[in-house]
Amino acid sequence: MKINGRHYQTIWLDEADPSVVHTFDQRRFPHEVVIEDLRTLEDCVAAIRDMHVRGAPLIGVTAGYGLYLALLQAPDAETAHEHLLLWTAQLKSARPTAVDLFFAVDRMVAALAPGQSLTQMQEAAKWEAGVLAQESVAQCRRIGEYGLPLIEAIHSQHPGRPVRILTHCNAGWLACVDYGTALAPVYLAHDKGIPVQVWVDETRPRNQGAQLTAFELLQHGIPHTIITDNAGGHLMQHGMVDIVIVGTDRTTRTGDVANKIGTYLKALAAFDNGVPFYVALPSSTIDWQLRDGLHEIPIEQRGDDEVKYVQGLHEGRIKQVLIAPAGSPAANYGFDVTPARLVTGLITDRGICPASEEGLLQLYPEKRHA
Amino acid sequence: MKINGRHYQTIWLDEADPSVVHTFDQRRFPHEVVIEDLRTLEDCVAAIRDMHVRGAPLIGVTAGYGLYLALLQAPDAETAHEHLLLWTAQLKSARPTAVDLFFAVDRMVAALAPGQSLTQMQEAAKWEAGVLAQESVAQCRRIGEYGLPLIEAIHSQHPGRPVRILTHCNAGWLACVDYGTALAPVYLAHDKGIPVQVWVDETRPRNQGAQLTAFELLQHGIPHTIITDNAGGHLMQHGMVDIVIVGTDRTTRTGDVANKIGTYLKALAAFDNGVPFYVALPSSTIDWQLRDGLHEIPIEQRGDDEVKYVQGLHEGRIKQVLIAPAGSPAANYGFDVTPARLVTGLITDRGICPASEEGLLQLYPEKRHA
Repeated sequence: MKINGRHYQTIWLDEADPSVVHTFDQRRFPHEVVIEDLRTLEDCVAAIRDMHVRGAPLIGVTAGYGLYLALLQAPDAETAHEHLLLWTAQLKSARPTAVDLFFAVDRMVAALAPGQSLTQMQEAAKWEAGVLAQESVAQCRRIGEYGLPLIEAIHSQHPGRPVRILTHCNAGWLACVDYGTALAPVYLAHDKGIPVQVWVDETRPRNQGAQLTAFELLQHGIPHTIITDNAGGHLMQHGMVDIVIVGTDRTTRTGDVANKIGTYLKALAAFDNGVPFYVALPSSTIDWQLRDGLHEIPIEQRGDDEVKYVQGLHEGRIKQVLIAPAGSPAANYGFDVTPARLVTGLITDRGICPASEEGLLQLYPEKRHA
Repeated sequence: MKINGRHYQTIWLDEADPSVVHTFDQRRFPHEVVIEDLRTLEDCVAAIRDMHVRGAPLIGVTAGYGLYLALLQAPDAETAHEHLLLWTAQLKSARPTAVDLFFAVDRMVAALAPGQSLTQMQEAAKWEAGVLAQESVAQCRRIGEYGLPLIEAIHSQHPGRPVRILTHCNAGWLACVDYGTALAPVYLAHDKGIPVQVWVDETRPRNQGAQLTAFELLQHGIPHTIITDNAGGHLMQHGMVDIVIVGTDRTTRTGDVANKIGTYLKALAAFDNGVPFYVALPSSTIDWQLRDGLHEIPIEQRGDDEVKYVQGLHEGRIKQVLIAPAGSPAANYGFDVTPARLVTGLITDRGICPASEEGLLQLYPEKRHA
């Protein structure tokens, strides 16, 4: 998608120097556009852990490039083979909730064969990281195509006004490599000329909605309005939301969805008001091992400074302000789990299905006996 | 209650100079304790409209003193009688949702009689504003006494740990004259030696939870933890909340509750997880004229700067930072309505009742034929 009129993906190998991976430092959006150089495994781990990059699909691809960069810096093949387990452990422990991270790292390891020379390993890793990135683009595009008819159907029922879509956090192209998950159908609808209006939850504590979703929609020219996380229920009570579409960091075999903290509250409000609630996801966020999202998905707890301090622009510079008494503690749970019973449907890169084991298995029959 | 160990109420007449009313500029908490002088009707209207004072009961008392100050500045009785309607209209239009404001202004007007001299009017207004203030203190104290057994009952079921109470916005003493509404039972429980732990919703956009509730609990030594507005559902799903207690700005005859935006989402989560959800209120917030909260209570819309800018402390000074793209619009609904069906009970200054017309009429039989 575009920033200042120029097309970007969120992560790419330097054209001239393939020992450098570029990405955006997303902590600086929307106030500054900062392209950052990743040169080592440690750079990638820090970028994931400290949330320069975020969003399940982008975290996965960044981890893939992290392993490639580690191999690039290895002195010889023996060291590389010996350290592989350590490197994958470092990458997998950077953040605990998104399953794409584990999926991507496992895919990278599977692309490396015992007995490969160092150059072979480096080439294989570079290739596989690139494949992960372009697979993500293709998956997101398909999610968009499968989700588009939902928006078209609302538009044909109410042709005289925009389709009003509520989203939480950022599940746009900045969370992926391109297009996004929840926002992919929105981009495709807009590009097709269907009028849309997006309610953007600001998404405390890190404000990914206000900082990232609003930014990317503004850059693409899509009408949107930022709201506090508190406001969505009121809007739904008053018939001002036609559909909710969110992303997910991990989806169980049974259709439970772990997504940014607060998603569950919006799902409750949608259910209470008869508003369709859809979750968009690439296949890689499905954890086929899990059946009970509420009890089996680990929920990341982050530092309390993210709650007590808010970052923004003051007199042209990015600053952090303390919004609470210094002496008051805060808790910071990163995700919550929305039970499948509250989810109208899952928009995957293989089509739309009910949020249930049977629904998912219709689209993924190869997982029936897994 | 106390600030820095000294007892205060939130509004009081200057002891030496009865033409000055003192209150706190609550926009400066928790970073600064600023006592402000109100000398005119306009000062009081601005204090209400710009939220130097907030909270339904305190808004009402401030309006009462506003009328007193207007009378104090009137040149003669004739002018005073002539302007009464204008002054009350100015006060009533300062904020649209809280019914206490209208109640307090009507009480003030009822205390003034045609034919009174200017001095008589001034004395009557001073007296009545003081009565409104002290009635609020007594009502809040009784709300605390009626609510206390709810906390005691949870404590006796789980004697080995604190009673975990979630609250939204600020319905503490800073919203009233003393004690608070939702927090009154919490203060009484703590003072009685019952261990409590309060989850404080930060309450965007104005962060009254993080700025005011946390401040007053910290000053009183009550254990508490600030959370984002997104987090409460997750806590309730995991059995980490024993009871939710919130305040209200307007309650219908049928038990629907208008309170700070986001209250409805917490009520949904409480209902979904079997957590008792109580609303604490003085009688003056009941609007006996209304039956359908969702369609009849006007919901204030405030400026979008409150959403896009966040205020806090940076290098020792209070500053505002922009958290969104300057070009993105925001919407700012101040309140939402929680339907009576989601409310476990109402804690009033006459006792606890179900959130229903029949429940309220048991406590207010004089309203049966009103």
